[in-house]
Formats: sequence, structure tokens, C-alpha cells
Amino acid sequence: MSESLRLANLDYDVADHVATVRFNRPEKRNTFTKQMALDIVQAIAAADADDDVRVVVVAGSGGHFCAGADLEAAMSGELGGTDEFAEAAGDITGVERDSGGYAALAIAASLKPVIAAVSGSAVGIGATLTLPMDVRVVGESARYGFVFNRRALVPEAASTWFLPRVVAPGKALEWVLTGRLVGSAEALASGLANHVVADDEVETKAFEIAREIAENTSPVSVSLSRQMLWRGLEVDSPWHAHAAESRALAERFQSTDLVEGITSFFEKRTPSFPMGVPSQLPDTVERPAQRPSDV
Amino acid sequence: MSESLRLANLDYDVADHVATVRFNRPEKRNTFTKQMALDIVQAIAAADADDDVRVVVVAGSGGHFCAGADLEAAMSGELGGTDEFAEAAGDITGVERDSGGYAALAIAASLKPVIAAVSGSAVGIGATLTLPMDVRVVGESARYGFVFNRRALVPEAASTWFLPRVVAPGKALEWVLTGRLVGSAEALASGLANHVVADDEVETKAFEIAREIAENTSPVSVSLSRQMLWRGLEVDSPWHAHAAESRALAERFQSTDLVEGITSFFEKRTPSFPMGVPSQLPDTVERPAQRPSDV
Amino acid sequence: MSESLRLANLDYDVADHVATVRFNRPEKRNTFTKQMALDIVQAIAAADADDDVRVVVVAGSGGHFCAGADLEAAMSGELGGTDEFAEAAGDITGVERDSGGYAALAIAASLKPVIAAVSGSAVGIGATLTLPMDVRVVGESARYGFVFNRRALVPEAASTWFLPRVVAPGKALEWVLTGRLVGSAEALASGLANHVVADDEVETKAFEIAREIAENTSPVSVSLSRQMLWRGLEVDSPWHAHAAESRALAERFQSTDLVEGITSFFEKRTPSFPMGVPSQLPDTVERPAQRPSDV
Repeated sequence: MSESLRLANLDYDVADHVATVRFNRPEKRNTFTKQMALDIVQAIAAADADDDVRVVVVAGSGGHFCAGADLEAAMSGELGGTDEFAEAAGDITGVERDSGGYAALAIAASLKPVIAAVSGSAVGIGATLTLPMDVRVVGESARYGFVFNRRALVPEAASTWFLPRVVAPGKALEWVLTGRLVGSAEALASGLANHVVADDEVETKAFEIAREIAENTSPVSVSLSRQMLWRGLEVDSPWHAHAAESRALAERFQSTDLVEGITSFFEKRTPSFPMGVPSQLPDTVERPAQRPSDV
Repeated sequence: MSESLRLANLDYDVADHVATVRFNRPEKRNTFTKQMALDIVQAIAAADADDDVRVVVVAGSGGHFCAGADLEAAMSGELGGTDEFAEAAGDITGVERDSGGYAALAIAASLKPVIAAVSGSAVGIGATLTLPMDVRVVGESARYGFVFNRRALVPEAASTWFLPRVVAPGKALEWVLTGRLVGSAEALASGLANHVVADDEVETKAFEIAREIAENTSPVSVSLSRQMLWRGLEVDSPWHAHAAESRALAERFQSTDLVEGITSFFEKRTPSFPMGVPSQLPDTVERPAQRPSDV
Repeated sequence: MSESLRLANLDYDVADHVATVRFNRPEKRNTFTKQMALDIVQAIAAADADDDVRVVVVAGSGGHFCAGADLEAAMSGELGGTDEFAEAAGDITGVERDSGGYAALAIAASLKPVIAAVSGSAVGIGATLTLPMDVRVVGESARYGFVFNRRALVPEAASTWFLPRVVAPGKALEWVLTGRLVGSAEALASGLANHVVADDEVETKAFEIAREIAENTSPVSVSLSRQMLWRGLEVDSPWHAHAAESRALAERFQSTDLVEGITSFFEKRTPSFPMGVPSQLPDTVERPAQRPSDV
């Protein structure tokens, strides 16, 4: 009985254990607003709260993923969600929080894996918002663009942390400093894209990976793994990772999930794991900060 | 007069300054037990203590590197080394330490370079145990698999720290979340494999690299470099690396090794460095923690 | 009215908003001395101080970038700049600072992007000095070499921090441990090189990228982006990056640069940004330490 959401700037639907988050401003090439940041946070919260959701796919509409911030609305003063955003996000030592980062940190903290299905333009926040997602499937004619410096802006959405880790620092710096567009071949070679497929196969491939996860793996194990791998990029040393893994394994070895995992392996059949997320997710991984007051 | 070791789950032999650590359970595809973790720690300690050993090669047997944890033994209760492991490894805030991590952290702290010769299956701990090794040589038909989530487990052996650094985070997440197998071409393209060669050339290539190190480089310099490069991934800033490098160079510039290094360079001949490890290894690099009481 | 500098070991000239730093010891294949470290720091300081400079290109001469430390001078005692270096650099807990690191940390802290134009030999410090640069353009027949261990030395210039981030740790370790030469194809595949071009096109390509930055982007945005991306590799978590980005965006949204950035975008013309670096660079990014007393 998963809920569907018709939010101001995106739609959220669940089928076959996969939640689809779809930007719904195709007439604006899904340009980003503060309202969209609020909507993304709400959609991730819905997926987090629903045991039936095992994977999230984020997709565009009208042939584009997201063509960046809505500069027209910014110039005309017609931006939506501004007051609500300021109230929800809070400030950082006196300055308003970057709305892209507000959404990106929610994605980074997601309890479920997040897969990006990238077609057409993925520019500005449309590029950086995909970085805390786990897998990026990119269409052949898609164009990434870290164009900030050409508009007198700077990279945001916590991308100064994510980008030089997701790709080599030399690539990250060249793309950001020049602000030039990045095609799918370069995205694949650099590791920005996990897979490049024909434009009309992007969602097919993204949902194929989502189903591969949903049908074969333990939701609790997947959630712990996702959190530990991202967290592993933050912690000081392999020793810290070893401690977190030991705690998670101690829970897993005593779980009803494990009985099914081992039994199905010896019986050479697809497993059917009994435990769900969030209802049976153990508290073995430190959650990332979500609000200034948490830091 | 390097010693050979016939341990319960692996063999250790030294020839031409190269120690070979070989898993010796081919009838079980070298599946991993707590006894094997103990044996690996003992083998690394033997290599660390022996000036004659300059490089370590870790290899499988019977066509496989290591096909993961021994789940049959785990289910039947016939696991070896369990009590000895608990005593040797200690616990972490009340939970037993992951045995894979116990072995992996010993490899990470090795004073000598470690080269993996990977054939056949490198699955589960067979995959993650290679991550703290320095160079991975992989056979064409070898198969990596970070299969944990399919068994209701989670990645271990400190791999949530190592894997998203050894390969791009997007690859690490896709491999772990899906739990699918990874072939040699993908291993090479992602940086997981340094070299992919024909299956019957894997050990040849691994020993070729081992000899290239042993015959041309200063053992003290190699040991310091290995420690500083891994440590460089832990420290906060390039400034910290600069301080450690300055300390190491101060020792090196006053060493008898350097005279041979410079002289052999101008004489265009192979150097023969006088100083050995561990007997003449300077104490300029902070060693990683090995036991909970060290943290 | 940008100044030109004729320093002992390099030349510094500015044209079209691009400063060229060129090693000028072609008869010695631009081998490195302490004087050269001092000269590099002086050249970076000149670029930092000059609003007219938007990008720095570092190039070799006589067909080579830099063939490593000047071992002949080191052996004959004819090294220049030694006393001046000791006074300028200070020491680290009683040992002299590595001169390569002294230069590399200055490049890392540069307020302007730095592009390497690498031809011929880039060996030892000639290899490691390029790592804190933002973009590396490499000639087809160029040869990198992290040869330290063959001379009884260790990697320096803070490369134990930079190298295993700029390329995958497995590549970094193999290159340093063996000390073997690395050709341009391997440099490209590993991410060490951003671009490989014909030998006689190296500077053409480097200046093309420099002009692309200088002509299309905001100097303030570029300077902030460069600092935040390198700094992003140091900070503990994406949350810290989010805070720094929010502070920088708060300044940018109120800047005269932004008006030009948005207006030129809607008018589909090349922007002409009014604000310069360093004169109008906001103080939103924590600067890296430059001297022991700053740590």
C-alpha cells in the first residue's frame, strides 16, 4: 500500500519495490527551484519510511533530466517554495543553506539505493544532484555540464566533496574550471556514468539494475552497505570501517535474513528475505548530519 | 635462511627475496575460515620480520584464488580456529571482530609490498582481501564478486574503506548493491586490476613485478613508500604528507643506501642496496592500529 | 601592467590573462634545485597578486618538462639557493622541509588555476610537481617516472597525499614501488593526464584550455571553485563542503559578477565579469597552511 505523491515539482510512485521520483516540469526542462529541493526531500523521506520500497530511481521527463537552476524564475522573482525552504533548511552561520545541497544531502543519507536515469541535459544542479546517487545510467546524447563558473556561480550540492571522489580530481577540476559540456563517452571513461546506453534505453537499464537489487538482495544488507560505503569515504582509517563492519556483521549473523541467505544459496534458488527497511534496520551505522543543529 | 611455514590453511615459502603466500585448500576452492585469518597474520608477520623478504605474492591454488567464506563449515559448526581467533583478535565494544578485517588490516600494515595473483574465483572475502594489497594481477577468466548482499551479509575486511578508494565510488556501490559478478575486463577498466593476463600467465606476471621491485629498488625506500602512500589516504591534508615525507627524506639523505642509489645511477648499473627491512627501517611513519587497544 | 620575471631557474611572463611559468635550464633538462623551489613560490605569488592573471601554465623547455632533482649538483656540492631555502621554508620538528613539497604546497594553494604542459621527461619531482596542478596536458612521447625507490629516495612534494587521489591507489602504488617509467597512454587511461596530444601540440592545447577558462568564466568563481574542490578532498564530510559552498554562494548571489553572468546567458553572448582576483576575492574558503607555524 505504498503511497503515490503528486508534489509541486515532481511525482513519486512505487511499483515492484522500486520508487520512481520523476521531475515534472518538462516545459521548463525540469529546471530546479527551492520547491523542487523540498519535494526531493519529501520523496526520499517517503521512500525511507516505506518497507515496500527497496530501490529509488530518479528520472527526468520531456527528454531532459534537469537543465539547472531556474534562472528565469530567479530573475523575475517568481520562485516558489522560498519561505518554506528557509524555514525547513535553516541557516549556516548566518547564510541561507544552498538548496541544491539540502536536496543532495538528503539523497546521500537515503536508506535505500538511488539510481539516476540521465537523459538530455544534466546541467548545473542537474549534474551535481546525481553525484550522491549510487549508480548513474546515462543516455548516449546526454550532456553533463558543471557550468557554474560561466554564470559567476560556484559548484554546489556538496559537489566540491562528491565530484573529486566520484571522478578523478583532474577531471573534476577541468570540468568545473572551464564550465564546458561533458558528453556521454567522457562521462563513461571517467566513471561519472556507470553505463551509457541508447537514449531510449536509459530508463529500461536503470529499472533493470533496480530490479536486480530488489529481487536478489537483503534490503537490510543493502541499506547497511550503502550507508557504510559512503560513510567509508568519510572516516579516518580502515580501522574505523572495520569496527562498523564488525558491528553490522554481528547483527547479520544473528538475523533471520541470514538463514534465508545461506539456505537459498545451497538450494540454488532466489532468496526471499524476511526483514525490511526501515522497520528492521539495525542501528549500527552512524547517520550523516541532516540539519545544522545536528553537526 | 628464510623459514618456510606449513600452516593449516596456507603455505609460506621464500625464494629470490620474494615470499609466496599460497592458500592450500584447493579442494574447498580456498574458502576462508578463521584459521585462514590467523594463518595470514602469521605469514605477514614472518615476512615483516625477515630482511631477506622484499616482496610478498599472495596466490591461490587449484585454479582459484578464494571463493569466499566457508559457508558449509559455518553451517555445520566444523569451523577451525574459532577459539584461537577470538583470543588473538579481541573484540570491538562487545562484538567479535570480523575475521576478514583482522587479516586485511595485517596486510594493510605489511612492511613489504603485497601483490595479488588472482585466478578463478575471487568472491566475498576472496575479493575484499585483495584490496589492501598493492598490485592486483588478474587472469582473463577470473571473476570477482562482492556478493555479500545476496547472502544477507555486508562487505567486510575493511572494504567499505578500501573499495570506494581503490575504484570509483559509483563502481563500488553498483558492485556491492547488486552483488553481481565482475569480469576481468571491468576489473581492468575500473582500476581494480592493475593487469589482466592469460590465466596461465597470472603468477608469471605477478612474480615479474615482484622481481622488478626486489632487484631495482631500496627495500627501506619501498617500505617507507608503501606505508606513506596508504597512510596518505588517511591523513587530513597534503601538509601532513609533506611533514612525513620530509622526515623520511632527512633519514634517506644521510643513509648508506643513498650513496649506492646515486652512484649506481651515474654508473648506469643495477644498484645493490645495503640496508634491510625491518632491521634498518627508520621510525618516520606512524604505524596503523592493529588491535582495539591501539586505537 | 603585469610584470615579467627573469628568475634564476625559470621565466615568468603574462599575456592575454595567462601567466606562463617556464623552467629555463634546458641544458640540464630542467633538473630541480632548491633555487627552483624558491623561484616557483615567487612565480605563484606574482600570479596570485595580479588581477590581470586568470590562469597559470607551467611548461618546460628544450623538449623536457623536468628530469628530476639535479643529482650532479647535489653530489658536487654546487647546489644554488640552499641557504635562502632553509631560511624561507623553515623546518619541521627539526628536519629541513622537502623543497619539492615547499613548491608543491604553493601550487596547491594558488589562487589561480594551474595547467601543466608536459613534454619529454617528467621524472621524480618533475612528475610529482604536476600533481597539485589542476589539468595536465601530456605529449605522446612524454615519460613520467616516480623513480624515487630506485635512487634510495621516497616520493616527495606531498605526492603521498596527491598521487593516490589523482590516480587509483593501485596505480600509484605500482608506479612508486617499481619506480618504472609511465608512458602517455597509461597516463591518460589512469587519469594522470587529462589530455594526450602530439608532442608539438602540448603547449597549444594547454593554452587553449587556459584561454577557455580566461575568456568564459568569472575569475572570482574560478578561484573559489579551485580552492573548494581541492579543499573538498580534505574535509571530513559533504556537510562541511555544503557549509563552504553556502557561504560562497551567498557572496556570489549578491555580486556584480552574477548580474553579468545571468544577463550574458540570456543575451547569448560571452560574459565580461567585473570582479578580479585577488582584489575582490571573498574570504569564504579556509586557506591551506603554507608554513610550519601555520599548522
